[in-house]
Amino acid sequence: MSSIREECGVFGIFGHKDSANLTYLGLYALQHRGQESAGIAISDGEDLSVFKDLGMVNQVFDVETLCALKGENSIGHVRYSTTGSSTVANAQPLVISYSKGKLALSHNGNLVNADELRKQLESGGSTFQTTTDSEVIANLIAKLGKDSVEDALAGCMRRLKGAYALVILTEDKLIGVRDPHGIRPLCLGSLDGSYVLASETCALDTIGATFVRDVRPGEIVIISRKGLESKIALQAKRASCIFEFIYFARPDSRIDGKSVHMVRSEFGRQLSRENKIKADIVIPIPDSGISSAIGYYLESGTEYGEGFMKNRYVGRTFIQPRQKDRDLGISLKLNPIREVLEGKSVVCIDDSIVRGNTMKKIVSKLRKAGAKEVHVRITSPPYTHPCFYGIDTPDGTKLIAKDSSIEEIREKIGADSLEYLSLEGMLKCIGLPTDGFCTACFTGEYPLNIPEQTRIDKYLLE
Amino acid sequence: MSSIREECGVFGIFGHKDSANLTYLGLYALQHRGQESAGIAISDGEDLSVFKDLGMVNQVFDVETLCALKGENSIGHVRYSTTGSSTVANAQPLVISYSKGKLALSHNGNLVNADELRKQLESGGSTFQTTTDSEVIANLIAKLGKDSVEDALAGCMRRLKGAYALVILTEDKLIGVRDPHGIRPLCLGSLDGSYVLASETCALDTIGATFVRDVRPGEIVIISRKGLESKIALQAKRASCIFEFIYFARPDSRIDGKSVHMVRSEFGRQLSRENKIKADIVIPIPDSGISSAIGYYLESGTEYGEGFMKNRYVGRTFIQPRQKDRDLGISLKLNPIREVLEGKSVVCIDDSIVRGNTMKKIVSKLRKAGAKEVHVRITSPPYTHPCFYGIDTPDGTKLIAKDSSIEEIREKIGADSLEYLSLEGMLKCIGLPTDGFCTACFTGEYPLNIPEQTRIDKYLLE
Amino acid sequence: MSSIREECGVFGIFGHKDSANLTYLGLYALQHRGQESAGIAISDGEDLSVFKDLGMVNQVFDVETLCALKGENSIGHVRYSTTGSSTVANAQPLVISYSKGKLALSHNGNLVNADELRKQLESGGSTFQTTTDSEVIANLIAKLGKDSVEDALAGCMRRLKGAYALVILTEDKLIGVRDPHGIRPLCLGSLDGSYVLASETCALDTIGATFVRDVRPGEIVIISRKGLESKIALQAKRASCIFEFIYFARPDSRIDGKSVHMVRSEFGRQLSRENKIKADIVIPIPDSGISSAIGYYLESGTEYGEGFMKNRYVGRTFIQPRQKDRDLGISLKLNPIREVLEGKSVVCIDDSIVRGNTMKKIVSKLRKAGAKEVHVRITSPPYTHPCFYGIDTPDGTKLIAKDSSIEEIREKIGADSLEYLSLEGMLKCIGLPTDGFCTACFTGEYPLNIPEQTRIDKYLLE
Amino acid sequence: MSSIREECGVFGIFGHKDSANLTYLGLYALQHRGQESAGIAISDGEDLSVFKDLGMVNQVFDVETLCALKGENSIGHVRYSTTGSSTVANAQPLVISYSKGKLALSHNGNLVNADELRKQLESGGSTFQTTTDSEVIANLIAKLGKDSVEDALAGCMRRLKGAYALVILTEDKLIGVRDPHGIRPLCLGSLDGSYVLASETCALDTIGATFVRDVRPGEIVIISRKGLESKIALQAKRASCIFEFIYFARPDSRIDGKSVHMVRSEFGRQLSRENKIKADIVIPIPDSGISSAIGYYLESGTEYGEGFMKNRYVGRTFIQPRQKDRDLGISLKLNPIREVLEGKSVVCIDDSIVRGNTMKKIVSKLRKAGAKEVHVRITSPPYTHPCFYGIDTPDGTKLIAKDSSIEEIREKIGADSLEYLSLEGMLKCIGLPTDGFCTACFTGEYPLNIPEQTRIDKYLLE
Repeated sequence: MSSIREECGVFGIFGHKDSANLTYLGLYALQHRGQESAGIAISDGEDLSVFKDLGMVNQVFDVETLCALKGENSIGHVRYSTTGSSTVANAQPLVISYSKGKLALSHNGNLVNADELRKQLESGGSTFQTTTDSEVIANLIAKLGKDSVEDALAGCMRRLKGAYALVILTEDKLIGVRDPHGIRPLCLGSLDGSYVLASETCALDTIGATFVRDVRPGEIVIISRKGLESKIALQAKRASCIFEFIYFARPDSRIDGKSVHMVRSEFGRQLSRENKIKADIVIPIPDSGISSAIGYYLESGTEYGEGFMKNRYVGRTFIQPRQKDRDLGISLKLNPIREVLEGKSVVCIDDSIVRGNTMKKIVSKLRKAGAKEVHVRITSPPYTHPCFYGIDTPDGTKLIAKDSSIEEIREKIGADSLEYLSLEGMLKCIGLPTDGFCTACFTGEYPLNIPEQTRIDKYLLE
Repeated sequence: MSSIREECGVFGIFGHKDSANLTYLGLYALQHRGQESAGIAISDGEDLSVFKDLGMVNQVFDVETLCALKGENSIGHVRYSTTGSSTVANAQPLVISYSKGKLALSHNGNLVNADELRKQLESGGSTFQTTTDSEVIANLIAKLGKDSVEDALAGCMRRLKGAYALVILTEDKLIGVRDPHGIRPLCLGSLDGSYVLASETCALDTIGATFVRDVRPGEIVIISRKGLESKIALQAKRASCIFEFIYFARPDSRIDGKSVHMVRSEFGRQLSRENKIKADIVIPIPDSGISSAIGYYLESGTEYGEGFMKNRYVGRTFIQPRQKDRDLGISLKLNPIREVLEGKSVVCIDDSIVRGNTMKKIVSKLRKAGAKEVHVRITSPPYTHPCFYGIDTPDGTKLIAKDSSIEEIREKIGADSLEYLSLEGMLKCIGLPTDGFCTACFTGEYPLNIPEQTRIDKYLLE
Repeated sequence: MSSIREECGVFGIFGHKDSANLTYLGLYALQHRGQESAGIAISDGEDLSVFKDLGMVNQVFDVETLCALKGENSIGHVRYSTTGSSTVANAQPLVISYSKGKLALSHNGNLVNADELRKQLESGGSTFQTTTDSEVIANLIAKLGKDSVEDALAGCMRRLKGAYALVILTEDKLIGVRDPHGIRPLCLGSLDGSYVLASETCALDTIGATFVRDVRPGEIVIISRKGLESKIALQAKRASCIFEFIYFARPDSRIDGKSVHMVRSEFGRQLSRENKIKADIVIPIPDSGISSAIGYYLESGTEYGEGFMKNRYVGRTFIQPRQKDRDLGISLKLNPIREVLEGKSVVCIDDSIVRGNTMKKIVSKLRKAGAKEVHVRITSPPYTHPCFYGIDTPDGTKLIAKDSSIEEIREKIGADSLEYLSLEGMLKCIGLPTDGFCTACFTGEYPLNIPEQTRIDKYLLE
Repeated sequence: MSSIREECGVFGIFGHKDSANLTYLGLYALQHRGQESAGIAISDGEDLSVFKDLGMVNQVFDVETLCALKGENSIGHVRYSTTGSSTVANAQPLVISYSKGKLALSHNGNLVNADELRKQLESGGSTFQTTTDSEVIANLIAKLGKDSVEDALAGCMRRLKGAYALVILTEDKLIGVRDPHGIRPLCLGSLDGSYVLASETCALDTIGATFVRDVRPGEIVIISRKGLESKIALQAKRASCIFEFIYFARPDSRIDGKSVHMVRSEFGRQLSRENKIKADIVIPIPDSGISSAIGYYLESGTEYGEGFMKNRYVGRTFIQPRQKDRDLGISLKLNPIREVLEGKSVVCIDDSIVRGNTMKKIVSKLRKAGAKEVHVRITSPPYTHPCFYGIDTPDGTKLIAKDSSIEEIREKIGADSLEYLSLEGMLKCIGLPTDGFCTACFTGEYPLNIPEQTRIDKYLLE
């Protein structure tokens, strides 16, 4: 139920006769990572073409379009645009031609020094047709102009600051890159002898591919007719995005070896451990709270229930009619089931609170449906700092936890109690080294230096 | 996860300034009842116009279209077409002009004597432009030609055999009709002093309307500037469709006073009572099995879990690429979560088995994900007879339970055990008089005489 | 340059393997008769299907759609809608099923007793889904319910009053009908042994068919596997629409045996004969005035020139931007060529003057381009009475000649002289019996009794 | 009737409140110069945005789109794509951001050293997202990176070889550039105190602007809040494209001070002077032959007539159905009028013969329509050499005059006589210095050095 948005999902496959179809299916499995635009670039070993448009995967591609995409090597992209830039021009993959030939690029993440690099490139005569960081990366590759694209990439990585999981296609190579902090996920699989790259393992499962391993922070994997090569281009302190586990990734994915569902379930257990309370029922806010609510029930023994029905048919094209004196708010998406809630003391599990408006409405709905007590439990610490690595919150979002105490938030949302998961508790649940995550949104300790201007721009938006 | 399909959802509102917008939102809440076409007819008290098209509610209507629908009285329709007739012409509401003026009609259900009535009408000079039962009803109303549409409807009902929940709009009246057996649901609500009609209460909840009561079998409710009038036009033995509780209706709806979620939860409890088994975990097939799986866990004490992740983005326009040697089957929709299932004895709850192919793949997926034992539990009896009242199964569907024993089905789907809910057990769970339901799909005892030709046509399709 | 609009073009072909494609091409040749909607109904000898939509022929049909139209017998229709009814529902061919099977109908013309027939049919229980006269005809055929459609048609024709050129397709017959006055044109051709029906001979030429003969007033031609049968169902005084020659028909068509181009050229010659004037140049208002201007030049010896360039790209979807203080008027369509006009005394030929606004702008443009004198010549008499047989003028059109003398009109349009062709002169030019035409728009002598209500409705619009 | 195609029309306006609407209308007037794509870029003085798509002007823009284009300065473009590149990416205006801000560019013409420049730019690190020459120009401007865009343009022009009429928009300037040879036309107008740039004067006429002057070869005109500045950046021998007069431009335009209609009329006169023949009638091939046929009639005294009716409704989306054994060829576009032609000796005027196939069909049609003799007259010399400056002929076009004598061509097309206008005669008709034109298509004397590779590529295509 979060109003937080990620920016992208990436996919690539090399040397498979069903290349375009499999990329289509892979993107479909990654649809939750971006519903704004979708695209596939494909190479037949000689030329490289692209088809992309605004819309969801099944709106952008039809049988005719897919059939027209010929070739055995392809990459894809789904995108959740940030404010003001939802134009076709910004859709990916980006395809450029430069001194070494053609190159297609799919990018998930956000650079913190994009503006600086852009200005440097412009002063060297580069031009830009989009407002994406991806075009900065492509132009930088072209500017470095090394003999091989992987050499150019290695040079490029020394200048890029920020989060980037890249999937790159040239006429004869598929390349995967993960930034040295490993902020965004990227995994490697194989299908029928062909290598596959994807943001999440659920894309591998959907096409029937086998998981091989996660791409390592700072690693460049080069897939060609000669097979797979790898080099670590840069090393840095690991700082994987914790929000992949909290909210972004599909529960059936494994990120860096850990099941997202199980981690979330553990979040729920830890919430129960950290704050025991006697209640009649624990319910999730669908869909993100389900795994955690199950964990909570398993740990606490509180009865599990589903107190809200979610309307599955809200799409990006859904219009909310202008109505005087009527706040449809959350009603279009969630309808409480009175018979589950009436007279009960309810524990309600969600992943995060951004502005608090949505949670306020949810609590109010629970009370109207007869809940006797409402205890809100959040599977992450208070969200206090903006993200500069690819996570976005809607226009003019005010982070409620920035200036309000937990008690003040509780009061605002109208809950009987409100508890957040502790930072330590949360990190422990994952089962990976606890210092390997970026937790800046909770702590303000950014793993990279954020240029002052970027910081100001971001705050100005909020 | 059923491959059973219903045909329609209906909605109407009278005398509300936000009429078109509210109808749009009501249809959106009823989207699960039909995703093939959507339409709204509206009257400003003088003229009556309609907008309808193929597609889901949010595809058919945009801001511009909704703004163009002026008037305070309107009805809407969502449709799941039957084989071969997914054309715009068949979309509803149907609007006709006849001797008494204009009339718009939204219909949920299926007549069993449509062909017979159609032939009679044709021999009297009537013409037809669609293949819908609804046009038969409209032509019959016109043929009877009484002074008031409600009188014509009363006469009409004496000749219609089958299931029909109708919402009808004339220049100055909104009328709701439910067939004398009460096969399909229809409820009455109120909002800001205006009356509302809807197939399910979830539509009332979504627009913020208050539930007033269910429309009674055989009742005609007439809503006009004068308020609400009602008459029982015909009486017959009650035979409400049990599948509304098993599968069709949204869990957050109440049908004839009973919460669908609670009835399904009770189905799960009853399954556990009827057949005790020791297992490690009970999981639903999403989304239809969730309420029942929760009931099963509550009754049996078996741990509840979610073993499958469902991809929420499959729409009607999703294309399944043609791929040689690859059966994507259920993989696009459901992905098992190995960490939940591995080494476990799993009870898996679904609403029904039609052909058995889907369940076979589900069981196979569970085993591949490491389930030690798979026990399938179905929240209804074996589905053995076709429906003639508005429920459809896909082309050439073979009902597996028609010629196979439960043991044979179990073997086919590859489960360790398979149990169906007993007819008596199921009926008891609902909490309404057990003889008030149509259970023909399980028993072959049809509440109305089915003409031989209809019967043959239906069987030929299977 | 007329603002007069016709309503339809019809086409049919029976027993040709390229049936759909040829109908498409035939409609394309008849596109000038209607650009609002287009449709094709086709029969494979067993079933009858239809595809129609708003738009021009090449917008409605693409390769995929045409390929899906299977069968050897088909009819088509292009339509210029009248006010307020440009909806898909009103597009033709209309396809109905009735007691004798299916029937598709394409209609060009207008009934004067449609409302009366509609009311009679409604009181007998008929329903209507469109506002077209064509549905009245179809319902009347169904109501009469004779064994053969041609018998029903014969009965039907006794009750229809007005203009109708019909092309009708049943599962196994193609039927052409022309009203007993022969108001609208319809011709018969043959191609590769198959019969073809079309509104104009240009459609025969385009598909390479040979002209056989015009369908006779009151005639029903029945084309089936048995060949061609004909019967005269009704006889009446001939009253062909003179405006086909003046404006509607393509110059390369022959109507009732007469070349439209040559008739128009003769109009131009006659204009010169009736009113000799010394001028430097004669120019047409493109495109309708070209043939006449050539005739004028040939007869008078005045130099021929083209003084206006017409923009060929104005389509129905062209939007005229709202601009303050700017009357784009005719500028978007016509641009004068100063070098042709400067310092000249110009004779300017057009087919008719409806409101006078357009001609006023044209005269003004000629003067601004340097014309010394502007002499307007019209190839028909003053247009004083509305048409009830299928010709329409835009919303709220005021016929300038109804209340103004020629001198007043001349003054309004700002011409140095204005002359209309005399009624007798015009009729003489055609070379057919002069009493065989409807000239009601010039004389008010309607060949059929116009019901008072129809008359009032029409005048109210004007 | 030529199968020759030009590539573009450009338009710009600065400081007008109706900027977007006027650009739309201007493009509409230039639609004949390109029907493949259309676009408008607009600046509100601060930011610069663009809307462009495949399709004709009235297909690409609707009311909503136009209303969204806010600003007082805008440029537009219509494009006729060359083989293989009809993608949205290649549509113009091209908008880039570079070191000096944003820049939009509309280009008409073709560079002969585009590939060479592209390679140079790429080796300096530039990247390309389209295959257009325009992107080469934009990248070159960025690379030169001077303080003002006009300085960069001046430097740019020293490196560009070929034809270019450019209209460029920055945040605060509108700039027009014409290559030093003046190959493509560009004119300057004014409306309500705002300056306007357009490929042809017909665009000025359509929006009601006043013609100021033609932009001079090698001139850069800079329009800003400060008014109009001009500088001649480069000087070279004038070599305007003669085909603008022969075929491309609209007859109502004036190019470099000369009326296209009058020049064409003079071509017709000169044809008559160069080759006297006794004939009954002279007819144009519509539309390009009309002005010349009128000139021919005026000079020779031969009767003028229109022997062909042209179907006005063929658009780019028109599909020609696949039909066995049927060559629809020219029949869809031209239908002869037998009554004009029968028994006549006909002089038939067209602008050029490219392959000869079309003319062969036209002659054949004339004979079938009864023409006794057919004398073909062409208003230009034999077309023998390909163009490298922006004119294209369809795929695999074989220039018939390259290897065939006039007598051989006459025989191929089946005419009784065939005469081309002499080069000298043609040049004399225009009334401008005869050495100021590029006549390479007739003589092979290219005004610029054509790189060998470009020459080979072009010939390979032919």
